[in-house]
Amino acid sequence: MKLLKEKIESEGIVLNENILKVDSFINHQMDPFLMKEIGKEFAKLFKGEHITKVLTIESSGIAPAIMTGLELEVPVIFARKRKSLTLTSDLYTAEVYSFTKQESSEITVSNKYMDAGDNVLIIDDFLANGQAAIGLAQLVRQAGGTVSGIGILIEKSFQPGAGEIRKQGYRLESLARIKSLADKQVQFADAKETIHQ
Amino acid sequence: MKLLKEKIESEGIVLNENILKVDSFINHQMDPFLMKEIGKEFAKLFKGEHITKVLTIESSGIAPAIMTGLELEVPVIFARKRKSLTLTSDLYTAEVYSFTKQESSEITVSNKYMDAGDNVLIIDDFLANGQAAIGLAQLVRQAGGTVSGIGILIEKSFQPGAGEIRKQGYRLESLARIKSLADKQVQFADAKETIHQ
Repeated sequence: MKLLKEKIESEGIVLNENILKVDSFINHQMDPFLMKEIGKEFAKLFKGEHITKVLTIESSGIAPAIMTGLELEVPVIFARKRKSLTLTSDLYTAEVYSFTKQESSEITVSNKYMDAGDNVLIIDDFLANGQAAIGLAQLVRQAGGTVSGIGILIEKSFQPGAGEIRKQGYRLESLARIKSLADKQVQFADAKETIHQ
Repeated sequence: MKLLKEKIESEGIVLNENILKVDSFINHQMDPFLMKEIGKEFAKLFKGEHITKVLTIESSGIAPAIMTGLELEVPVIFARKRKSLTLTSDLYTAEVYSFTKQESSEITVSNKYMDAGDNVLIIDDFLANGQAAIGLAQLVRQAGGTVSGIGILIEKSFQPGAGEIRKQGYRLESLARIKSLADKQVQFADAKETIHQ
């Protein structure tokens, strides 16, 4: 997506070869016009999938997800993160390991809001190791629903998440794919380029 | 706001005389069309205030805030919550006490995204004791900016937050004001009705 790539080029900050900061327009301060365009783009990409729900995870996924839900005219759910694993019968739960924070947390969705009739589009801001997206897909499967696709703003194609998601058979659409952050430079992958992880 | 009140009447669940659950359209599952209409309503209410930034707090404030920012054509910032108070020179910080969780947390905004030139509209989902809104206002003042207004989706007018915010001189606009949750019933306050707390 051209607008997103331009934003990354002009405002993204490469901290090291693994970390791209996009705090000025996605992760802390947010650009509402960009989010709206992202919502339109995901709606266009997934419009044939009969999506019934958009699912994301707090907090950075919420803005692009709500714009996508607005375009697709379906409800949006954000999974909650919490520290401890406590079993409760009214929640779908999955464990997600954060490589950045080096800790596990649990993500949950109330069983009132997803069921076997749902075709779910998962939206998240970053795809690196794929833990969050795979955890969200587990929640959908616990509900008996279908993961109709995974929409990502920024895929770090040099990390294992994208490959893992495709291996699990999910349709993945990433609006910007980065093949390298070496030498403090963002290098995008071409649209169909396969990155060997 | 008529649409919001109708949603509260049809889908809100009164747990007890203090707690209204709106998990099906605001706090967990979200209604994107409602959020868009809320954004339009806040933009209309505050359009004369020359707003330069919308500020909210993760996670439930993000959806209405991004829609408000879209209408006002200004960036949106979400403050982050965290447990421990660690001083860092590049953050504005305030302490917020949660009566529900009975614990304090710290809310932060990077000093890169607010400054003395900003007229800030604060958006949040609920107003009860006012801790979050007042904490957000403190962040704006630390930046030297102006709190141009506080926009709330659901004000529990029988709790002290609304009175406290008005006492501090801020302009407060709440789209739905609830004067009582007694007997498991939602009773709205009239638009200009003053509730004695």
